[in-house]
Amino acid sequence: MTSYEEAETEETVTCLHMTFYHPCQEDKMMFRCLNFCKREQLRVDETAKFGRDSSICRYNLIDSRVSRIQFSLQFYRKLNSSEFCFEIKNMSKKTKLIVDRTELGYLNKTDLPWKCIICFGDYQILTEMQEGESMDYFETYLRLAQMPFLQERCLPSLQPVPETGIFPSLFLSQDESPKEMDENESY
Amino acid sequence: MTSYEEAETEETVTCLHMTFYHPCQEDKMMFRCLNFCKREQLRVDETAKFGRDSSICRYNLIDSRVSRIQFSLQFYRKLNSSEFCFEIKNMSKKTKLIVDRTELGYLNKTDLPWKCIICFGDYQILTEMQEGESMDYFETYLRLAQMPFLQERCLPSLQPVPETGIFPSLFLSQDESPKEMDENESY
Repeated sequence: MTSYEEAETEETVTCLHMTFYHPCQEDKMMFRCLNFCKREQLRVDETAKFGRDSSICRYNLIDSRVSRIQFSLQFYRKLNSSEFCFEIKNMSKKTKLIVDRTELGYLNKTDLPWKCIICFGDYQILTEMQEGESMDYFETYLRLAQMPFLQERCLPSLQPVPETGIFPSLFLSQDESPKEMDENESY
Repeated sequence: MTSYEEAETEETVTCLHMTFYHPCQEDKMMFRCLNFCKREQLRVDETAKFGRDSSICRYNLIDSRVSRIQFSLQFYRKLNSSEFCFEIKNMSKKTKLIVDRTELGYLNKTDLPWKCIICFGDYQILTEMQEGESMDYFETYLRLAQMPFLQERCLPSLQPVPETGIFPSLFLSQDESPKEMDENESY
């Protein structure tokens, strides 16, 4: 018997699938340091940080308008349940983080729904959780989208949102940037 | 004007006061790596980890029965509020973490009440939060208690708990260790 065969039945690992989109992704290549289409395994005690500062963030966004840490994710288990969950925290002082209909200010946090859209500035991230058994690790799997999930720059909306968490359009408020943005003005 | 004087009015920093107790603290000196009576400042994105593994935990407990990471604390701001809060997560697979009346299993988490008692095994920690303004840092201030906060080894109780979070006595369940413990048996 090899040591592999001796091992317990291989357990599945909870995986957070994250699909990224930015309207200027081809020109600005802000995602060039992300490893797309590759499972990355993290220990459950690790906080997955996304942002500009590569010395702190495992997931590095190459964009001067992104905060040093833009947001972070932690893995946990719900109280009185065997269910795993991800929690997201906005670590940016200057930019709101929107999780479906919930607007997070700096240091606010919320649970990630099973499937949802996260936005900040012009960034859109579709996340979907794939359940697993491991109590030691979780995984991320990143993809790049060619098309936006939302037609407009995402802003909190008072409109009802379908249960899938994918809402076709949102409205720009008066004080936000126009629909056609100068590239220098874009997030 | 010195640069100190030029600085903005010095802002206060939220501080978590933590007073530690273990019945064998004098013999086993499990707290010898903690810096008592000294404010320690952490960035808000840092997770304060307590446990046996000094390569991961800033707060190191020298005790072979303590888990590599026993528990962790994160600082955040409540949604739709300016209030700061600490959240505690049990990182031990083998030992429950008890926060006042709430029993946390592995990877479970809960908010720390303003003042509370945290227990695991024979460890007791009285915590109290001191509010501050800083959005960049939080602090910890550790002390050593000479007397326990709870008269018995802490276990979840169905008894009502006074609002102070300090409950005078709890009961040992049948399958837990006896009141008079052999030193080798103690946590």
